[in-house]
Amino acid sequence: MRVLIAGIDGYLGWPLALHLAARGHEVYGIDNFSRRRNVAEVGSWSAIPIPNMRKRLEVARSLLGLRIKFFRGDLRKYQDALSVLRESKPDAIVHLGEQPSAPYSMIDCKHASFTLENNVTGTLNLLWAMKESSPNAHLVKLGTMGEYGTPNIEIPEGFFEIEYRGRKDRLPFPRQPGSFYHLSKVHDSANIALACKIWGLMSTDIMQGVVYGTRPNDITDLRLHTRFDFDETFGTVINRFCAQAIIGYPLSPYGKGKQRRGFIALIDSIQCLTIAIENPPKKGGEYRVFNQLDEIYGINELAEIVRNVAGKLDINVDILSVENPRVEMDEHFYKVDHDNLRALGFQPTRSIEEEVEIMLKDLTKVQRRIREKKHVIAPRVTWKGVASVPIRMRVHSELLDRQQEPIRVAPRR
Amino acid sequence: MRVLIAGIDGYLGWPLALHLAARGHEVYGIDNFSRRRNVAEVGSWSAIPIPNMRKRLEVARSLLGLRIKFFRGDLRKYQDALSVLRESKPDAIVHLGEQPSAPYSMIDCKHASFTLENNVTGTLNLLWAMKESSPNAHLVKLGTMGEYGTPNIEIPEGFFEIEYRGRKDRLPFPRQPGSFYHLSKVHDSANIALACKIWGLMSTDIMQGVVYGTRPNDITDLRLHTRFDFDETFGTVINRFCAQAIIGYPLSPYGKGKQRRGFIALIDSIQCLTIAIENPPKKGGEYRVFNQLDEIYGINELAEIVRNVAGKLDINVDILSVENPRVEMDEHFYKVDHDNLRALGFQPTRSIEEEVEIMLKDLTKVQRRIREKKHVIAPRVTWKGVASVPIRMRVHSELLDRQQEPIRVAPRR
Repeated sequence: MRVLIAGIDGYLGWPLALHLAARGHEVYGIDNFSRRRNVAEVGSWSAIPIPNMRKRLEVARSLLGLRIKFFRGDLRKYQDALSVLRESKPDAIVHLGEQPSAPYSMIDCKHASFTLENNVTGTLNLLWAMKESSPNAHLVKLGTMGEYGTPNIEIPEGFFEIEYRGRKDRLPFPRQPGSFYHLSKVHDSANIALACKIWGLMSTDIMQGVVYGTRPNDITDLRLHTRFDFDETFGTVINRFCAQAIIGYPLSPYGKGKQRRGFIALIDSIQCLTIAIENPPKKGGEYRVFNQLDEIYGINELAEIVRNVAGKLDINVDILSVENPRVEMDEHFYKVDHDNLRALGFQPTRSIEEEVEIMLKDLTKVQRRIREKKHVIAPRVTWKGVASVPIRMRVHSELLDRQQEPIRVAPRR
Repeated sequence: MRVLIAGIDGYLGWPLALHLAARGHEVYGIDNFSRRRNVAEVGSWSAIPIPNMRKRLEVARSLLGLRIKFFRGDLRKYQDALSVLRESKPDAIVHLGEQPSAPYSMIDCKHASFTLENNVTGTLNLLWAMKESSPNAHLVKLGTMGEYGTPNIEIPEGFFEIEYRGRKDRLPFPRQPGSFYHLSKVHDSANIALACKIWGLMSTDIMQGVVYGTRPNDITDLRLHTRFDFDETFGTVINRFCAQAIIGYPLSPYGKGKQRRGFIALIDSIQCLTIAIENPPKKGGEYRVFNQLDEIYGINELAEIVRNVAGKLDINVDILSVENPRVEMDEHFYKVDHDNLRALGFQPTRSIEEEVEIMLKDLTKVQRRIREKKHVIAPRVTWKGVASVPIRMRVHSELLDRQQEPIRVAPRR
């Protein structure tokens, strides 16, 4: 198959590209490199150093014999979207090219607008360009489980049959996203559903859980690794906890830590995306939703898992909660259908404990890079605060007593 | 009260400004004049000639003694949103400043993007500016009944209580909008709901039916009239039918004409908006939804009503369907709650027949302006077609036999 990956330079994009190319697919990629810029903007970097795209492509070719074709472009421009489709003539388009951080979208109006424009306008341009030049391509779009929020009822895969006042219908499941980032994904989902309905495009809209992991199995050479973020804005929770554990920084569940979310390892995210690509929906307008996750955990549970695994590696870890910078429910019901991908063959690769062990070992090699940027771990972007003024880390007082070395909360420029 | 009207130059904005000012409110307005530009772009104009804003304000002052303060600005710019709030210090913000045409949003990617940016980015900027400078103002936001689409169950006002797999919750009612314009309003609703939740803003989100009418009662001087659009993109259905009737152009239901929608007269829309403004929600985060409509009609019924009223005025009217340019359900269930505004005192002013009679009489005076632009009535923007190529009017063959004078379907520009 010819597969175009939008956001090929990102956390999921790069390992997916390598994986698909190794499976014999013809892989094309586009990126505007906004992730690299945005992580630098918040004063952080990838814990695992990553070469630039030219180097990445070179190493993929020389080391693995994989030829990946890259376009530098920005989906915010319709012409870029159209050009890359015309050049790559894809059977499948995997759209990972979105600003993926909730806190980043909450910094201020400018960052919320950027998120909206990058994600929603980008996807809109892609849809119109597909209509124009690739109407038979399969759009695999990365959404998020966060689109659903935390309703007090079970979460189906995208749609549900309900009875209301004596009548029945199958309707889109209500979305209750919790940040402007999550909203942008909700808007995308609605836009894509309409494009499928009126133009007959086909799409798999993936509500993905929180991803964790340093790499899939098949990538061992450091020059081929994907990025790994651990700052408060771009670092996802398990990744952040592992990075914190490595440098003796207490794990920091937000609030009560009883929030429950769906999670999936990087290697399984790649597996699932591959399954979606290789099993397209019906031509002629099918819009389907996959809930892409492996297990559901509470945040405190995750902290305990990371502490236990670290303990086996003789890494001593503290857990100390911080005041929740987000507006979200502390304790809530959470039950999620996730059968569609399993029905197509998805099998989780390993346990979370095994994955965390690999992560901790990988991160040990780059602990100096994490330590050097440890001031970006404490949350300063709150859902209510004005982030242009630096927000002090709100660690409970005992943290300040128990930590081994002081955490500098430097003003963010 | 101090009331800021975004979109004060528009169809609803201008008569609302006059009405509120006459009731003693201190009225401020902002507009980017995009409506005037966009109507000109599609080759049309307002059937009722409207003076420019400076003239409007002058006449309002000299004739009615009303002082309305106007800011030229564009909510797409955060600074404009912030400045106008800082200047006007509003108790209520009525946000009508959106691109209101579904067909316009479907012309091509550029027009879809403009709609998204003008509406969604505009509202997002307004929300952040409110957080910054007017956190206690009441945002009255104009949405559309089209946000809901046409589900097979009853439509409540914004939220519904449901039971699903044995558990209960109160959730946002699922939205199934049918165009990129309608989507932009859905995105707005979701963004506003979040802003209320996390920042404690308060808002009334108005799902308005299709508006019709030439003017509220209290405006008689022609220089104070509001705009009246009749072209395929900006003309709403009853308005278009009345304009068509006046020039002997057959009324043209799209498709089977059995689509059902909610409708409300301009005078009642003004009444309802005034009720919403003068009865704000609870401070501290209330987000409430009003379904703002008077009656539900099928499109063929409306054509019959216009034909009957015209007949009494000795205007002979044909009805001939055209192929539906939209993708929408031809026949469907449609039942809508609309009790919130009635509970606050809304009483419809008159019957649709009385309103249509006033409209036909008003439009008779400007029939030359309608006749001169009659080539913009036939639908050429379809939900599937590439509108940059002119689309021939798809009138059923009998129209071509029966009409009194040939309809020229000129290429647009």
